[in-house]
Formats: sequence, C-alpha cells, structure tokens
Amino acid sequence: MKALLVVAHGSRRMASNDEVIKLCERLQEEKGEEEFDVVMAGFLELAQPSIPEGIDECVRLGAEEVVVLPYFLSAGRHVSEDIPAEVEKARAANPHVSIQLAPYLGSAPGVSRLLVELAEGGERNGHSTE
Amino acid sequence: MKALLVVAHGSRRMASNDEVIKLCERLQEEKGEEEFDVVMAGFLELAQPSIPEGIDECVRLGAEEVVVLPYFLSAGRHVSEDIPAEVEKARAANPHVSIQLAPYLGSAPGVSRLLVELAEGGERNGHSTE
Repeated sequence: MKALLVVAHGSRRMASNDEVIKLCERLQEEKGEEEFDVVMAGFLELAQPSIPEGIDECVRLGAEEVVVLPYFLSAGRHVSEDIPAEVEKARAANPHVSIQLAPYLGSAPGVSRLLVELAEGGERNGHSTE
Repeated sequence: MKALLVVAHGSRRMASNDEVIKLCERLQEEKGEEEFDVVMAGFLELAQPSIPEGIDECVRLGAEEVVVLPYFLSAGRHVSEDIPAEVEKARAANPHVSIQLAPYLGSAPGVSRLLVELAEGGERNGHSTE
C-alpha cells in the first residue's frame, strides 16, 4: 500500500491550510487509484498534521511506502534542510516503511507549461475559475 | 506584442528570486513564440523588479498586452488584495495597455497532475533531475 504525503509550510490562515487539504482530497479522488492508495496533507509548521503525524497516519492506514512531496515553490532551507531532517527521523522511527522524498513542486519541469496555460486562460477571458 | 509578468513574493535569499527569474527565462525560450513575446519575473516585495517596474519594462519593450500571473500557491492577502491593487495602479498609469490578472498558480487544476508526476518519479528512483 502506497501513500503520498504532500507537505506544505503551514499557515496561521486556516484557509491556506484547507486549500492544501482540499487539493489532496481532489488528488485522492482523481489519481489515488492509479498510483497512491492514500493522499494526505502534512505541514512543516503552524498546522496539523505535522510531518511525523502525517507519516504515522499513513502507516496506521497500512502504507508500506510513503512518498513525501514538498509543496513549495523554491528550494529554501525548509526544502533543503528541514523537510529532509523530518524524513530522516521518520525513517529511523519506521524502519519497516519505505519513506521517499520527492522533488519539490517548484522544481517540476511542468510548472512552466502550467503557467502558460493559466496565463492564456487569464488572457482570453480574465477568468478566475477554481 | 504580448508580455507575461510572473509575480513572486520575493525573498531576502537571492537564490529563491533567481529560481523565478530562471523559470521565466526558460518559459521565454520554450513557449515565448507561441503566445508571449516577452516573459519576465516581478516581485511583490524584497526583490527587483517590483510589479510596476516589471510592467513598465514590458511596456518599454513594446507590450500592448501584459498578463500578470501570481506565482503563489495559496490565495492569501498577497493574491487577493496586494497584487490586484498593484495591477489597478498599473492600469491607471498605463491606460493604453491591456493589463490582465491571471489566476494564481495554486488554483491551476493541473497542479494535482504535476504532483503525481513528481511523486511517481521520486518514488521510482528518488531522482532530483532538473
């Protein structure tokens, strides 16, 4: 059983945390059956579940593999140090679980394509769908 | 002539600003000819060019249309108030230019697809390509 934990920074503004949680729910509905049985949100700071809590929950649900994906746009200290350190601790605490760290969102080559799609949509009709 | 101004928050950490600038350079190379003649980065705070400076530069280069795209993951105050206010001011200052505000990156339906692509790549081989 495979789980995806999408890790955002976390915000005092609950609506921002809820956006990530809803994205994960959508992801689970859309894509969950293809590759991941469980898709959850986790937060580095200021919101729950934390990264260890999120990984524990994935394991409790039966995950033998957990992929941790940083939902960040730039490779600052959180991406380069803080999240890898949390993943290392989680590996030590869960030696029977494969815990992988995926590249952060901003590093995805597809981001540029997405920007152009958004910009073209915005340009044509000034929409603000979704 | 059409320009795309990708607006990030801006960081004291220059490498984060450079990531956005490089993304825009890549976007200009990859996609510029299809839809946008110019693709530039702009910053809300802490880095240059600012949003008005970026728009002015697009206009100086000959843009009759500028699409401003917030490079943000959540719809906080910066996305809902600060960037629209800057766009309003820029419209008033450039009445002969069409200045459109595109949806912010985190609102793109394609973000979920991108996350799964990244997670699958990360899961298969732990890569950090790019």
